Amino acid sequence: MKRSFVKMQGCGNDYIYFDCLEEELPQPEKWSRKLSDRHFGIGGDGIVLICPSETADAKMRMFNADGSEGKMCGNAIRCVGKYLYESGAVPKKDMWIETLSGIKRLILTTSGSQVLSVTVDMGSPILGASEIPTLFNLDTVLDHPLKVNGQEYRVTCVSMGNPHCVVFLNEVESLPIVTIGPQFENHSMFPERINTEFIHVIRRNELRMRVWERGSGETWACGTGACAAVVAAVLNGYCDEGADVTVHLNGGDLIIRDVGETVWMTGAAVKVFEGTVEL
Amino acid sequence: MKRSFVKMQGCGNDYIYFDCLEEELPQPEKWSRKLSDRHFGIGGDGIVLICPSETADAKMRMFNADGSEGKMCGNAIRCVGKYLYESGAVPKKDMWIETLSGIKRLILTTSGSQVLSVTVDMGSPILGASEIPTLFNLDTVLDHPLKVNGQEYRVTCVSMGNPHCVVFLNEVESLPIVTIGPQFENHSMFPERINTEFIHVIRRNELRMRVWERGSGETWACGTGACAAVVAAVLNGYCDEGADVTVHLNGGDLIIRDVGETVWMTGAAVKVFEGTVEL
Repeated sequence: MKRSFVKMQGCGNDYIYFDCLEEELPQPEKWSRKLSDRHFGIGGDGIVLICPSETADAKMRMFNADGSEGKMCGNAIRCVGKYLYESGAVPKKDMWIETLSGIKRLILTTSGSQVLSVTVDMGSPILGASEIPTLFNLDTVLDHPLKVNGQEYRVTCVSMGNPHCVVFLNEVESLPIVTIGPQFENHSMFPERINTEFIHVIRRNELRMRVWERGSGETWACGTGACAAVVAAVLNGYCDEGADVTVHLNGGDLIIRDVGETVWMTGAAVKVFEGTVEL
Repeated sequence: MKRSFVKMQGCGNDYIYFDCLEEELPQPEKWSRKLSDRHFGIGGDGIVLICPSETADAKMRMFNADGSEGKMCGNAIRCVGKYLYESGAVPKKDMWIETLSGIKRLILTTSGSQVLSVTVDMGSPILGASEIPTLFNLDTVLDHPLKVNGQEYRVTCVSMGNPHCVVFLNEVESLPIVTIGPQFENHSMFPERINTEFIHVIRRNELRMRVWERGSGETWACGTGACAAVVAAVLNGYCDEGADVTVHLNGGDLIIRDVGETVWMTGAAVKVFEGTVEL
């Protein structure tokens, strides 16, 4: 069976998108494994199915390259918004997308029929030390000392649905992240392991971030990580609540606005090519 | 400008193919760099342009992911043959393709309108020690001792247009190729560096090969390397001249037949998907 797809990326986080509004894609786990292969398949971080929803404008289902189903991805959901608007399936600049992490609101910035960027409501940060979860015997983990491999770091911990440890450093380009990343990830204070954001404050409301994702290693971009970093930066006085903070990731820039009760994330969504593949 | 392409692979060596028989692709160096990117582009080892030829049925131009122009690739030329036959552009099972390494003969095995495999005349092996080039003061380098990082190996050197050092070992799966590969590549006896094939003779006329390509590291497959390995195996008495020798590479199998004056290589050519991209 021939099936058409669109390859899109946000901050270098690239997925193969299938329009399943009218036709299902059977065995998505199998196809994600097969098609994500970068030499023998189409190549991507996984596949995303754009499906009908009974409670929102559409539903996003995402599968990682290993075939496991993901809950939510801030870079992928922007591409879903772009596709729905540009294809005419959802002709709204304010839309709601169902995910396994709940229904997310998207606000699109457009120019004619083109979507220039997409803003996603990433929800409320969770600061409770045990809720994140961490094993610190504290209410919140804010600029707190943590010894990693014999060296003391000061860390701020935030959950955006998944746990993050944010570390502010004087520079991050020369950081041996392949060594230090797993030491944070598997530290005894983090019972479900942790994502770690290494942040250099370039100036007020502008951050450079490198991220070590639990289970993945260093990645191009992590939307929840950028949100956690800005929440931590506001708490530490490096950024202003309500301001548009630019976060420079390896794969591009995200604009994060921490308004207290929620965090807005804005970024590009890029269509790279369209194709057809025999399934 | 929208441009259509076909993504094809041979033994995992994957290129983006553009039909330039009727329309040129301007600035191929630039587009190869951009489109080969596996996160921000289509993703591939490079691009291949299928062009008209005045001296053969068609001309193949190939560009690596860094934008440099390649001379010839045994895995890519099989895909070119498949494309030309299946598209109807060259309705012949015995065709000639112009490359920067000269005009190559292809023989296609088909089933109806489909190409199942392609056999390529890879030319004559060169055995002269100085022609390969090596700095051994010998006529040929045949089962000759070579000290690499303090350990003695026995090597056979062959040029298939590019230089190869073939090493027979009792097993190759556990080989620390990332360490040992560069030590062969940059050995003082090889003035233009060298590609190294590590070979386990599974049984007569069946080899397992891992290859370290100069400038690239370990790759899925190397067509000239598989040819050099079989030439060396015939010289060392592990394979028979004129026999179909199966070589198991990381990316799949190749069948090599060393008939003395030339070497025939047979392998699959797989169309993965078709697409269109904005250039």
